[in-house]
Amino acid sequence: MALAKRLDDLGTETAFAVSQAAAEWGAKGNRIFPFHLGDINLATPANIVDAMNAAIADGKTGYCPAAGIAPLREALAADIGAGRGMDLTAENIVVQSGGKPVITKFIQTVMDPGDGVLYPNPGYPIYESQIEYFGGRPLAYRYHETESGFAIDLDQLRELAASGATAIVYNNLQNPLGCESSLDEMQAIADIAIENDLWVLSDEAYFEMRYSGTSTSIASLPGMAERTVILYTFSKKFAMTGWRLGCAVAPVAVAQQIAKLNTNDESCTTHFVQAAGVEALARPEGAAPMLAELQRRRDAAVAGLEAVDGVSVATPEATFYLFPNVTAAMARMGFTDVGDFATAALHDTGVSFCTRRHFGRPQPGEEQQYIRLAYSGISVDDITEGLGLFADWAHG
Amino acid sequence: MALAKRLDDLGTETAFAVSQAAAEWGAKGNRIFPFHLGDINLATPANIVDAMNAAIADGKTGYCPAAGIAPLREALAADIGAGRGMDLTAENIVVQSGGKPVITKFIQTVMDPGDGVLYPNPGYPIYESQIEYFGGRPLAYRYHETESGFAIDLDQLRELAASGATAIVYNNLQNPLGCESSLDEMQAIADIAIENDLWVLSDEAYFEMRYSGTSTSIASLPGMAERTVILYTFSKKFAMTGWRLGCAVAPVAVAQQIAKLNTNDESCTTHFVQAAGVEALARPEGAAPMLAELQRRRDAAVAGLEAVDGVSVATPEATFYLFPNVTAAMARMGFTDVGDFATAALHDTGVSFCTRRHFGRPQPGEEQQYIRLAYSGISVDDITEGLGLFADWAHG
Repeated sequence: MALAKRLDDLGTETAFAVSQAAAEWGAKGNRIFPFHLGDINLATPANIVDAMNAAIADGKTGYCPAAGIAPLREALAADIGAGRGMDLTAENIVVQSGGKPVITKFIQTVMDPGDGVLYPNPGYPIYESQIEYFGGRPLAYRYHETESGFAIDLDQLRELAASGATAIVYNNLQNPLGCESSLDEMQAIADIAIENDLWVLSDEAYFEMRYSGTSTSIASLPGMAERTVILYTFSKKFAMTGWRLGCAVAPVAVAQQIAKLNTNDESCTTHFVQAAGVEALARPEGAAPMLAELQRRRDAAVAGLEAVDGVSVATPEATFYLFPNVTAAMARMGFTDVGDFATAALHDTGVSFCTRRHFGRPQPGEEQQYIRLAYSGISVDDITEGLGLFADWAHG
Repeated sequence: MALAKRLDDLGTETAFAVSQAAAEWGAKGNRIFPFHLGDINLATPANIVDAMNAAIADGKTGYCPAAGIAPLREALAADIGAGRGMDLTAENIVVQSGGKPVITKFIQTVMDPGDGVLYPNPGYPIYESQIEYFGGRPLAYRYHETESGFAIDLDQLRELAASGATAIVYNNLQNPLGCESSLDEMQAIADIAIENDLWVLSDEAYFEMRYSGTSTSIASLPGMAERTVILYTFSKKFAMTGWRLGCAVAPVAVAQQIAKLNTNDESCTTHFVQAAGVEALARPEGAAPMLAELQRRRDAAVAGLEAVDGVSVATPEATFYLFPNVTAAMARMGFTDVGDFATAALHDTGVSFCTRRHFGRPQPGEEQQYIRLAYSGISVDDITEGLGLFADWAHG
């Protein structure tokens, strides 16, 4: 009786260890400034909760179709299509218990063992985990720091794609970098996908989490809809992370396979939560104050970090993440290990954050040091106070 | 750009086609008597809904731990342990979005490609689907009809186990058969598991859905806890099928791997639904009237079927399924195909049900014909009226 060998290739989110370290330090009576959480400490709009209860009163407590209830699939097709300039129907939509299930279901649907899959590094660690778990060949592509944020190393990406790849995971409005492709960069990625006949997972979890401008989906570029699966989630926009509601947007043949995986894996997504999703899309006004609050937090966090000697940071127009370069601060303070730097910051100031290492193995030649701060789970006042302590500490 | 080859080995629940055929026939203005649904048309007790709303008001709308919230894991350990005479702790419990996810996660955790896995046929079709999907060798074991129901063919099971197997799926209080092991049969299965050093999935979805007597878990027999994963679900007992809440009960090393799969697959189960589960376990009184109603339905359905010429049926003390033998009725009416029989019954009487074929490929030598009726989604009056029409039809 042994455990299955495939489990050796299963990764995880090591960022949970940061939450645990912060919780343990807090339990000893220390004040914590939680910048490690990619969660939102704001209430879900009340109209969404009310719609859920109306659905329960209406008996929506039994099973529903594996691909989701028709009203939600239709509303998602209309809303996602309108926001991206795409023609979508309910047949393209497969409801999921959050955005994350789309990652494993995309990999299972398009990748055979041995196939190469391109994915961002630094990036959300579940991409790599699922590629390796299902026997694929992980092909990590990198970013380089620019004056205004980060850009994909397109030369490396082209080289990796030409080495033989089946699919690419693309996460514009990126976690952890907070960065966004220029339209040129996005078109270059689309060109690479088409030239190499790749499937594309477009992780659009933060598509609507932006403070200026508008988002573009790579799926809306010519030749892309038929090869792209969009990861969509209610988690961020509507402060519904714990509700577990999202969907895959996919070409019909792929959508049908993903629905079959739903039937095997979980039967369906919570029935009345889907009814709540219909309401969220119909009356999204309740989510607007949330974005305004997040923008205030971003401004406070950027200001706080800019005041730290030896720290440089861009001001992203999207997501709720910052990825400051702390190389100079670490060098001045005598740190060579970014994990040690984070632990010391926690113990000396209560400021808790993730580091570059929680988002994939460092690539060859990486010399700069980065940390990742999320400002979705901490108030403006606490941001300012915490980063003030952090600045004092870094200044020695 | 092709779809992954592994999808060729992914099965499904063909019973959904029966739902669809019934819905289509109903949409043409025909009255339907729905015996095909393994769902419950009764309301979830109000205290459970209230607890969920209290949790939302308390801010439980964000992410929670992948293995589930501590209060629910503790409550499940206490409740499941007490009901089975087992010593369980929260470490043994991994919360899931329903009972079904335990099937795929058990298979992924204990089975390598090429490993043999024993599973019941007739049985819940997802067992076979997941064994084949993850590259295992499906070893179907059969039942034979007895005077009071069905019993496992232990000789065949011993032979299959000795042919090389890694695990066995055991579903006492069985879907679709409605049958239950004698204590002797259960002990024989435990002996086979121990002698062949098998992992065991004990699907206990219907453990508390019984009208007399008490259930025994195979995990509580000597030498079994360390090799057994229990599938537990809130779906049936609390009329919460659409809520999607259940758990795996597993040895700690297995539980940790299943939690890691949770992190990869869906992050966590809906946060506030877990709080509702704590309330359900604390005050289960609300579920009692449901069981009384199901017993009235069982009695009506058995009486209705016993009145049909050429149909014989046992009276199960558990589950909400009946698996009548319709061989004589089909022969008299000139049917050789049980699917044709079901379609004719739907069109001539509106009575909709599944057949043996929705629960696995017929095994060599099978000559008797069976259908499966669920009485969880239809009232006593409709049961009596529908089966009266069915009897008239069968009598010609």
